[in-house]
Amino acid sequence: MSDLLVTGGQILRPDMTIERADVLLDQATGRIDAIGDVGPADDELDAAGGLVIPGLVNAHTHVAMTLLRGLADDKPLDAWLREDIWPVEAELTEADVRVGAELGLIEMIKSGTTALSDMYFDIEEIAAAVEQAGVRARLGYTAVTVGKDDEAARADVERSLEVAQEFDGAAEGRIRTTFQPHSLTTVDEASLREFVPAVNEAGLATHLHANETPDEVEPIVEEHGVRPLAYAQDIGLLAGDTYVAHGVHVDDSEIDLLVETDTGVAHCPASNMKLASGMAPVQDMLDAGVTVGLGTDGAASNNDLDMFDEMRDAAMLGKLAADDASAVDAASVVEMATANGAELLGFDSGRLEAGANADLAVIDLDAPHLTPAHDLLSHLAYAVRGSDVRHTVADGQVLMRDREVTVFDEEAVRREATDRAEKLVERAT
Amino acid sequence: MSDLLVTGGQILRPDMTIERADVLLDQATGRIDAIGDVGPADDELDAAGGLVIPGLVNAHTHVAMTLLRGLADDKPLDAWLREDIWPVEAELTEADVRVGAELGLIEMIKSGTTALSDMYFDIEEIAAAVEQAGVRARLGYTAVTVGKDDEAARADVERSLEVAQEFDGAAEGRIRTTFQPHSLTTVDEASLREFVPAVNEAGLATHLHANETPDEVEPIVEEHGVRPLAYAQDIGLLAGDTYVAHGVHVDDSEIDLLVETDTGVAHCPASNMKLASGMAPVQDMLDAGVTVGLGTDGAASNNDLDMFDEMRDAAMLGKLAADDASAVDAASVVEMATANGAELLGFDSGRLEAGANADLAVIDLDAPHLTPAHDLLSHLAYAVRGSDVRHTVADGQVLMRDREVTVFDEEAVRREATDRAEKLVERAT
Repeated sequence: MSDLLVTGGQILRPDMTIERADVLLDQATGRIDAIGDVGPADDELDAAGGLVIPGLVNAHTHVAMTLLRGLADDKPLDAWLREDIWPVEAELTEADVRVGAELGLIEMIKSGTTALSDMYFDIEEIAAAVEQAGVRARLGYTAVTVGKDDEAARADVERSLEVAQEFDGAAEGRIRTTFQPHSLTTVDEASLREFVPAVNEAGLATHLHANETPDEVEPIVEEHGVRPLAYAQDIGLLAGDTYVAHGVHVDDSEIDLLVETDTGVAHCPASNMKLASGMAPVQDMLDAGVTVGLGTDGAASNNDLDMFDEMRDAAMLGKLAADDASAVDAASVVEMATANGAELLGFDSGRLEAGANADLAVIDLDAPHLTPAHDLLSHLAYAVRGSDVRHTVADGQVLMRDREVTVFDEEAVRREATDRAEKLVERAT
Repeated sequence: MSDLLVTGGQILRPDMTIERADVLLDQATGRIDAIGDVGPADDELDAAGGLVIPGLVNAHTHVAMTLLRGLADDKPLDAWLREDIWPVEAELTEADVRVGAELGLIEMIKSGTTALSDMYFDIEEIAAAVEQAGVRARLGYTAVTVGKDDEAARADVERSLEVAQEFDGAAEGRIRTTFQPHSLTTVDEASLREFVPAVNEAGLATHLHANETPDEVEPIVEEHGVRPLAYAQDIGLLAGDTYVAHGVHVDDSEIDLLVETDTGVAHCPASNMKLASGMAPVQDMLDAGVTVGLGTDGAASNNDLDMFDEMRDAAMLGKLAADDASAVDAASVVEMATANGAELLGFDSGRLEAGANADLAVIDLDAPHLTPAHDLLSHLAYAVRGSDVRHTVADGQVLMRDREVTVFDEEAVRREATDRAEKLVERAT
């Protein structure tokens, strides 16, 4: 362990200004040591002609679903889940989940993402892949009780609690966990009421899908007489460090509740468009003071894990939702993908500052689609793509150097993923 | 001149199926000679592990506006044009337009686009850049009469007619033209009524912005008592080969009118989102039988010229507009970006078939974000990016081989564009 100098580039400051500076990373602590005219160091990463940004934070995904990329498109959420996704997922082996996660993590590293919040099962496999990848993650076991008898339902929710306790702090702290009820309509009230107090007592964070479609709102209003987030609060789900995925169909009272309970939102614009789920009122949430991060959702509903696409989509969809071209501006989406995401996940990352986690990406600006360079913040939001990332660093370690992923054998993972995806579909059909 | 074999790849057939085949191009005629188990040839392009698709058609852009990329974001159309874009455009020199067009054409070639429909001024410069680039284009001089006296207004519209006559068929037929009234609210009725008959008599095509925002609809309804496209028809603007850009705010009667008059639409989803213009009813138009192509619009309102982004955006926005995740599916957006665009522009391109123009792109599938390969049509719509294009061919000539643009000195163009963009902004502010 030694120190690493990211040298020759411009850097994105936490206040969204951009200036020429080197960044010195302490690889022993995994923190940023100093920024400015610093160095020399034991090792260097060439950022000449580049822009150094905080590593991107994917605040909601299902990373192993890369194996299902493009398997079923152009269908609404409910039919897509029941007819296409769940039958295939039922056939997933642990080895499938492992290679699916590895493939997704390679894609993330190649597009500058250094932290993710994942919802899935087979957490052992995903945790192992994350440990090898070198990124940070919030992981968990996703409980779904619909269609299960009381005992099985209870056991599934209990398992989500136990798994969250077991894995929290793994990979020398790079892995944290969340308690993960799938959603308010797919997990039964009795099980939630039984285990949520223990979740809060243990200080565990909670992550769930909420208000993604009208079908996640109306049945709750009908059954409980209140909006979904009020129901969630009543159960205690918003009492701890909680962030909900989607939050598309939230009304003003729910936005107020998000603020009051300090509950964050992982906004997933691409998925919301592709599944025709709707338009989240992102500018309204930002104005009210909600911490909004950005997530790609799984590769089956996106169909990539590129956070640059997601920033662009968030800016564009946010304007349409607000009917205002000045809404959800470039600075907002960059903040959502960096500082806000890090806040949701509880990692001391998402900003280039001495003392913060040494999680960053270097963007290559030497490209026609990034010429001229009137405004690099605009480029980050609207024109940079994952393929423009030159180096990726997390916890002070180089995960990709000059487009070469150092933590996985990319070709071997791609071959195995292709092979396993084919066999998976054969088994399921 | 000789023949060129695109060998080892899979190809996208006009019926949207994908199969293993080689493609033999006749460079003397610029046409596809044969498809299948063909060859050998004088020269080869390696498509092994790749997917060969028709060259993409960008049906609405302002290619020289690359110089203004990122100059002003997050503003509504009217303020953006008046406060930011027009003052800078007023300072553009011919050399600026030339290098802006070259930069845009390089970006297009690098992302698999082989034909474009452009609206701008200084057509001599743009035509020269297109001739050098080797792509096909519909060009023209865009008339704007708002703020001009009657004589100047008349002269501007007449110029659009004359320029369309002068340049039609240039670059050995790779350049065709359109008569270009900017829009129905920025060009006066008298001038249109004077010159449109001559446009139709000369058999010239027409391209104009229409129904982009409510501000392009309401004033016309107020003044003329009919919807904009009915007003356009009354003037004779829909009588010839006409395609309108945007067509966001069209009602059912206007969709019927588009069908009756065989008027096409160049849909620009990214621009429509970024400027909060609205959601075009694309599935309704397709169902009615309107020919809908895809355009990036200018780089200042997008902010790139990547037609793969545009396909993804069209699929996603189309679902949201229809409130139906099955709307505007993968096959539809691929057709919009290829065959439909070629139909709008009147080029015998947009399909891989013996006899068609030899305009194609080879996509490199060897990437984590394109793994696994359950459905390559889905990948084209949702996961491929411009940076995945390996080779680009137009009129049988190789414009890019292994990511190296052969028709321009990319570095020199980028340097000059950077330099000219800086000076342009200095002059304008």
